[in-house]
Amino acid sequence: MIGRLIIGDIRPSTPDFEHPAKATVGSQVSVRADVFKDGHEKLAVFVKWCSDAEGDWRSVRMTPVANDRWEGFICPQTLGLHSFEIIAGTDRYATWRNEVLIKYEAGQNIDVELIEGSLMLGEACLWDASATMADAAEPVKTRLESGIRAGIAEFFESHMSFDDETSSTQLKLWVDRPAASYGAWYEFFPRSEGGFGGATLRLDAIAKMGFDIVYLPPIHPIGKVERKGRNNTIIAGPDDPGSPWAIAGHTDIHADLGTFDDFDRFVERANDLGMEIALDYALQCAADHPWLVSHPDWFHHRPDGTIKFAENPPKKYQDIYPINFWPPSNDARIELWAECKQILEFWMSHGVRIFRVDNPHTKPLAFWEWLIAEIHAIDPGVIFLAEAFTRPKMMAQLAQVGFSQSYTYFTWRTKKKHITSYFDEVARGRASDYMRPNFWPNTPDILSGPLRNGGPGAFKQRLVLAATGSSAYGIYSGYELCENEPASDDNEEYLHSEKYEIKHRDWD
Amino acid sequence: MIGRLIIGDIRPSTPDFEHPAKATVGSQVSVRADVFKDGHEKLAVFVKWCSDAEGDWRSVRMTPVANDRWEGFICPQTLGLHSFEIIAGTDRYATWRNEVLIKYEAGQNIDVELIEGSLMLGEACLWDASATMADAAEPVKTRLESGIRAGIAEFFESHMSFDDETSSTQLKLWVDRPAASYGAWYEFFPRSEGGFGGATLRLDAIAKMGFDIVYLPPIHPIGKVERKGRNNTIIAGPDDPGSPWAIAGHTDIHADLGTFDDFDRFVERANDLGMEIALDYALQCAADHPWLVSHPDWFHHRPDGTIKFAENPPKKYQDIYPINFWPPSNDARIELWAECKQILEFWMSHGVRIFRVDNPHTKPLAFWEWLIAEIHAIDPGVIFLAEAFTRPKMMAQLAQVGFSQSYTYFTWRTKKKHITSYFDEVARGRASDYMRPNFWPNTPDILSGPLRNGGPGAFKQRLVLAATGSSAYGIYSGYELCENEPASDDNEEYLHSEKYEIKHRDWD
Repeated sequence: MIGRLIIGDIRPSTPDFEHPAKATVGSQVSVRADVFKDGHEKLAVFVKWCSDAEGDWRSVRMTPVANDRWEGFICPQTLGLHSFEIIAGTDRYATWRNEVLIKYEAGQNIDVELIEGSLMLGEACLWDASATMADAAEPVKTRLESGIRAGIAEFFESHMSFDDETSSTQLKLWVDRPAASYGAWYEFFPRSEGGFGGATLRLDAIAKMGFDIVYLPPIHPIGKVERKGRNNTIIAGPDDPGSPWAIAGHTDIHADLGTFDDFDRFVERANDLGMEIALDYALQCAADHPWLVSHPDWFHHRPDGTIKFAENPPKKYQDIYPINFWPPSNDARIELWAECKQILEFWMSHGVRIFRVDNPHTKPLAFWEWLIAEIHAIDPGVIFLAEAFTRPKMMAQLAQVGFSQSYTYFTWRTKKKHITSYFDEVARGRASDYMRPNFWPNTPDILSGPLRNGGPGAFKQRLVLAATGSSAYGIYSGYELCENEPASDDNEEYLHSEKYEIKHRDWD
Repeated sequence: MIGRLIIGDIRPSTPDFEHPAKATVGSQVSVRADVFKDGHEKLAVFVKWCSDAEGDWRSVRMTPVANDRWEGFICPQTLGLHSFEIIAGTDRYATWRNEVLIKYEAGQNIDVELIEGSLMLGEACLWDASATMADAAEPVKTRLESGIRAGIAEFFESHMSFDDETSSTQLKLWVDRPAASYGAWYEFFPRSEGGFGGATLRLDAIAKMGFDIVYLPPIHPIGKVERKGRNNTIIAGPDDPGSPWAIAGHTDIHADLGTFDDFDRFVERANDLGMEIALDYALQCAADHPWLVSHPDWFHHRPDGTIKFAENPPKKYQDIYPINFWPPSNDARIELWAECKQILEFWMSHGVRIFRVDNPHTKPLAFWEWLIAEIHAIDPGVIFLAEAFTRPKMMAQLAQVGFSQSYTYFTWRTKKKHITSYFDEVARGRASDYMRPNFWPNTPDILSGPLRNGGPGAFKQRLVLAATGSSAYGIYSGYELCENEPASDDNEEYLHSEKYEIKHRDWD
C-alpha cells in the first residue's frame, strides 16, 4: 500500500536511484521532492541526512516552492557516500492555526476550535497556553492569541510528531572534493620539454597562466612492434616515437622521459605551485605489452591464431590491442580487473589522485562501476574524468556509474541557440544531478570548425565560453599558440603530429 | 553489478514503476527503451510480454529509433494486468556481417573474417553455408555471399541466443476496454424528466446526439437534516430538493426518481441504444445517512460531542459530513473500506460499470489504490473517472494508483499557446502513459470565461475543441442550451440551481 503521504521525484538523484547523485564538500545541496496528501491539511516536510561513514543523522526542514514541490538545503562536510531521505507528515498545529485564523477573521464562532487548540497544546505540555485557550471567561481574542503567539509554532516545529509520518526510500549522494567539479586543466607532453626534468621547469609558467590541473597523456613505454610512423603511416622510421597510447607497460615510465624520481619531483613541484597532476588511464596494450605474453586470455583471439588488434572498420590500429574485459573464464576476469585496479593504486602511491580515462565507453560499464567504487573505498578523493565523446545516453550512464567529470559536446556547439540550450542542459538537465561537464574547446586530434576558420580571436572566444560555461574546463597542448593548420581540406585533424614536440619552444 | 547491456527509461510506465501504465484492448502499444552497451557491436532487442492471467509470454523484436532509443509494438487482446520486459544482447551475426561488408568494400583482406563467419554458421548448424565460407578454393565473393545471403539474418533472428543476455525489470501494463479511453459523455439529471420513467424516454434523443455514456449525478435519497435551500441558503423551503450530493443512503434510490425496476429498465434501454450509464460515486454523507448512527467511528468528532461537517474555511457545508478514511481503529478502517467497495458491487449488480468519482483528491490515495484493484479483480472492465480539479501532481498520482480517466484543466485553457501546450502535455507528456484526459468545456458549478462571455458560438467552439483534443469528452446538463447567466459579476457560478429542472423542457 502506498504511504499516507506521497513523496516523489526526489532530486538530486540518478535515474536508477541505485547509484548516487553527486555533490562536493562544503557546497550547499538543494534537495527537492514532490510531497502531498489528500485534502487541505498543512504538511511538515524534512530532509534527513548523514555521512554513511559517520552515521550522524540530522534533519532539515523543507519549504514549499510551488505546485507541491518542496526544497531544503544540506551542506555535507565530509568526503564519500552520504544518505538522505524525505520525512513528511501532517502538521496538525499549522493546519489548526490556519483554519482558526480564517474563521476568526470571517467573524465566525471559534469556541470549538479554541477547545481543539487547547487540547493539542495540552498534549504538547504547553499547559499555560492550553489553560488560557480553554478559559471561557477570557475574551475570544485573548484565548486565540495565547494559542498562536510567537514561539508556539517554533515549539511544534522542533517537537514534531506525526500520526501519518511517511518516509521516502533512502537515496545516496556521493560527496567529492571540490576539484571534482572545479578546475582549469592544461594538457602537457613532457616529451616536448625533453622529459620530466624540463617539464618540471615549465610548471611555473603553467601555474602563472592560472591552471589548476596539469594533465599528462600516457607517460609509459611505447610499443616497438607495429609502431606507427607520422600521420598514421604503417611503418615507423628509426626516430619516430610512436603513439603514447600504444602502451607497453602501464606501471613504467618511458625511458626518454626520466626516472620515477624525476616523476616524483615533477609531482611535488606541481603540488608546491598549487596544482595537481592528472594521468591518462588508457586500458589498451601495444603488441609488446607484457600482458600479451603473461595473460593472452585477456585479449580477443582469432581463428588464425592471432590476437585481434583494434579496429573501427575500415580503420585499423595495428599498434594497439584492445583488452577483452569479459574473458570466457570468470577467474581471468577477476584477475584482469584486479590488475587494472593495481595500476591506479600504483600511481596513487606516486601522488596522483586525478585520472583522465581514455575511451571509457569501449569498456564495460560494470567494470567502471566496480573499479571506481574500489578506488573510492581506498581514497574517496580520487577523481575520474571520462573521455567519452559518444552517444548522449552512454555519456550520462558513465557518469551515473561513478565518473566524477565528463567530456561534453561543447567543442561542437558553436551557434548561439545550440550554445544556449546545451549550457542549460548541462547546468540544469536531469543528468546535472550526477554528471559534471568539463568543457574543452578542442581535442588532441580534432580541430573543430571555429578554431580552424577563426584564428586567435576564435581561440580566445572559445576559451572564455569554456571557462564561463562550466566550472571545469581545459585546453590541449598547443591551444595557447592558436595552432590551426588542418591536415587537409576535408580532414578535421591537425596537420602533423610533431606539433606536440615543437609548440612549447615556439611559445617562449 | 549492472548488466552487460544497459536498459533504461522504459515506456510506457509510471514514475514509481510499481503501478501499471495503461492501454486498451486491441490498440497498438509502442514500447520504448534506451538500450546500449560499450563498444560498437550491433544489438538485438526484444520486448517480451504476456497477459498475467494467461501467462502467454511472447517476444517482439524492437528496432532502433535514434540515439540508442529502441521501439517495438505489442497489441494486447485481453483485459487486465499484463507484464512486459526488455531483453537484449549482442547480435554476433549482425556485428560480423556489418564489419565484413565494410572491409570487403574497402578492398581489405577478409580471409580471417570468412573463417570467423564459417565457425559462427557452423555453431548454428547452417552446415552448407559454413562449408562454402571455409572453402579457400572458392572465390572470396562466393564465400562472402554464402554467409550473407537472404534467409541467414532471419535464421539468426529467430534462433537468437546471447552470451550477454540482459533483462530489464518487469513492468506492468493495465489493459482496459476501449471505453476507458474513448467516449462522449452526457450529464443528465433524471429529476428533470420527472424520474427514471421520463428519463428513459429521453435516452433516444441523447443517443441521437451521438453520446456514448450517460452520466447521472447522485440518484440517492437526499438528507433532510440541515438540508440547504436554493443558492446555498441555510434553510431549505418545503419544496426544495436539497443537494443530490448530500447523500442519505448510497445503495438506495431517491423516492422521487422511481424504483429499482425503473432504474434497471433505464439502464437496459441505454444499453439497447448502444450507451452505458455512469453513476456518481460520492463518498460523503448527509446528516441523516444511516452510517452516522451505525458507524459514528467513521467520522471526525469534535470536543463538543458533534460530528464535524464539511468545511473549506471560511466556507461551510452543513449538509455534508466527510468520512474519516483513517479512523483511529484499524478494524474500523477495514470495515469502512469494505463497505465502500460494497456500494460499487451493489451498483455493478444493476449493470453499472462506469463510475464518475466525486472529489477523489480529498480521500486517501491508498484507499483508491486498494479499492480499484479490488473491483478490477471482480470485473476488469469497470471504469473510474477521477473528478479532481486540483494540483497537477495529485491529479497524476490519482491516475497512477488506478483511475482510468481524469478530469483536466481543459476548461481553463483558452488561449492558443496554452491550448497548444496543454494538448501536447496530455497527449505526449510523461503522465500520458497512465493518465487519460477527459475534456469537459464546463463544470456543474463553474461557468468558465469563454462560455460566460461568448454565447452559442463559444459553446460550439469549446465543444469541438474538447471532442477533437481528447478521445474522451463530455458536457454537463444544460450545455446544449448554451446557458450562460452568471450568479453575479464577480462569481463564476451559474445564476440559479433550478436550471437543472428547467433546461430539458426548453430544449424540446
